[in-house]
Amino acid sequence: MQVNGQAYRSIWLAADGVGVEIIDQTQLPFRFQVVRLDRLEDAAEAISRMLVRGAPLIGATAAYGLCLGLRRATGSQALAEMASRLIGCRPTAVNLRWAVERMLRCLLPLPEEQRLAAAYREAGRICEEDVVTNQAIGRHGLGLISQRWHEKQEPVNILTHCNAGWLATVDWGTALAPIYAAAAAGIPVHVWVDETRPRNQGASLTAWELVAAGIPHHLLVDNAGGHLMQHGQVDLCIVGTDRTTASGDVCNKIGTYLKALAARDNNVPFYVALPGSTVDWTVHDGVAEIPIEERSEEEVLRVQGEDENKTVRTVAIAPAATPAVNPAFDVTPARLVTGLITERGVCLASRDGLRSLYPEQGQ
Amino acid sequence: MQVNGQAYRSIWLAADGVGVEIIDQTQLPFRFQVVRLDRLEDAAEAISRMLVRGAPLIGATAAYGLCLGLRRATGSQALAEMASRLIGCRPTAVNLRWAVERMLRCLLPLPEEQRLAAAYREAGRICEEDVVTNQAIGRHGLGLISQRWHEKQEPVNILTHCNAGWLATVDWGTALAPIYAAAAAGIPVHVWVDETRPRNQGASLTAWELVAAGIPHHLLVDNAGGHLMQHGQVDLCIVGTDRTTASGDVCNKIGTYLKALAARDNNVPFYVALPGSTVDWTVHDGVAEIPIEERSEEEVLRVQGEDENKTVRTVAIAPAATPAVNPAFDVTPARLVTGLITERGVCLASRDGLRSLYPEQGQ
Repeated sequence: MQVNGQAYRSIWLAADGVGVEIIDQTQLPFRFQVVRLDRLEDAAEAISRMLVRGAPLIGATAAYGLCLGLRRATGSQALAEMASRLIGCRPTAVNLRWAVERMLRCLLPLPEEQRLAAAYREAGRICEEDVVTNQAIGRHGLGLISQRWHEKQEPVNILTHCNAGWLATVDWGTALAPIYAAAAAGIPVHVWVDETRPRNQGASLTAWELVAAGIPHHLLVDNAGGHLMQHGQVDLCIVGTDRTTASGDVCNKIGTYLKALAARDNNVPFYVALPGSTVDWTVHDGVAEIPIEERSEEEVLRVQGEDENKTVRTVAIAPAATPAVNPAFDVTPARLVTGLITERGVCLASRDGLRSLYPEQGQ
Repeated sequence: MQVNGQAYRSIWLAADGVGVEIIDQTQLPFRFQVVRLDRLEDAAEAISRMLVRGAPLIGATAAYGLCLGLRRATGSQALAEMASRLIGCRPTAVNLRWAVERMLRCLLPLPEEQRLAAAYREAGRICEEDVVTNQAIGRHGLGLISQRWHEKQEPVNILTHCNAGWLATVDWGTALAPIYAAAAAGIPVHVWVDETRPRNQGASLTAWELVAAGIPHHLLVDNAGGHLMQHGQVDLCIVGTDRTTASGDVCNKIGTYLKALAARDNNVPFYVALPGSTVDWTVHDGVAEIPIEERSEEEVLRVQGEDENKTVRTVAIAPAATPAVNPAFDVTPARLVTGLITERGVCLASRDGLRSLYPEQGQ
């Protein structure tokens, strides 16, 4: 997507063809800062510290992380260790494991001396495929927005939670791809952006993307979406997902479940946009089976922002003696999801729905 | 309640018997600062700028505001103007209007020269009655917590939203009164404190109260409560209300509705604690009829906290070009409320339930 008139992706190979460059997303919306990764450790830290986040982008970063690691050692044992180092960075998103396992399947059968070049090719392919996938998600989601626009003939109000935009993927995004596609098609859209505490990815990333793209939007606190739905101000919800079960349960940023409940209570369609790679075909009961990452209480107790002198600061919002809990994701049961928007089309959030689009996943 | 070993209420007559003193709640949890009000305008500003907040405390402050105004003018026309000035400060809470109208009923029939002294007496009565009311709410709510404790024989986990503690009333609180009563009765309780964006009354006021009272608690983002309920970590919810309809709908801090939906979806009892004065007997459909205060977008776009040098600062969390909406309350339909905890006992959130406790409200 465009940033100040220049086309960017969220991750790319540096001009020397060796290093990898990313946007430090912890500095947005205040600073647009490109960071170069040279070692596997750099990639692991970028994932853990959330310089990159979003299930697809984490996968792409891990794939390039293996490339960087292979520059030092190409043995199968070393490769396995690198893979588990990367997979351990974040426990919930399934793309991370998916991308690393795909890399291993490609690399392990090869002679050691061919692995490094093959790794860069495969990581590049993962990125290119992600872009194509997200464009397809955008096309399929566009149909839903377009239908609402034809019914209503007024701007379509779409609520989203967290950031599932181009910054969460290699380009275009998942939940935001249909919105970008609608805007490109001349359909008037307006986005309600949940700020998404504790890390405020809505306020800092989604809002920043929408400003850059010139798409009308309003920020709101995570508490406010239910009220807007009660008063007919939301036409549909579209969110992303970090892991989707084979039965259509959706594990996404903490708070997604509350919005899905409100959507159901107010007959607002609730869609989840995802590439097939976020489906974990081995998991059937999301609430019982998906491990939920517990992050540092500091993310709850402190908020980052820019002061009146444009200095980025972190301020404490609670008494020093107060502890916090910080589950990073929750699971929205399939029964609350109107449909899944995938690169292969829109389906019901159910075992049968997913199987109709991904028949190769068998039983 | 106790603050550093000294007993405080949230509002009191100054030692000179003329001025009124309050705690500046916008400075908590970082500074405990007492502010003196000398003019009606001071009281109005304290309400508008939320130095005081919480339906019962707003009512008490408005009552004393009339006293301060009467020191300048005691005519009936002046009194009516003062009353409407105060009622206009916040549109949603019904106690504000209730307290001012009670003062007018007391004062207007009196000769002018008796009004000032009568006003101070009546404002004092409103405060004393609020304390007695909240103690009764505490006793009735204690029964619910005690029952859960006997079933479970493990600490009772109670989720609350916003601040309905002693800082929101004259003393004891509404939603927190049963928790204080349980702690005093030796029942082990643990409180999940929603931070309550945008103004973070949970993080700054409820957490501060619980620290002062030595009650175990954890802060969580407003997004997290549904996840905790899905995993059996919440035994009951207790919240306050700014206005309750004659049919049991509850208008409370924005986000309350989302927690009530999650409680219903997970069979967690959802109670609302209130004095009878928050019932608006003229309103029957909360979603359709209660005006929802829209506050400044600045509250959403900026967050107040304390930096590493203990300086209280406000930081921006969104791009400068992003606008925000800020509805301050939402309405939880009676169908989602397990029961109302009032000073007269616990009742169903329904017309019949409320009439059983307040039969004098007639048809």
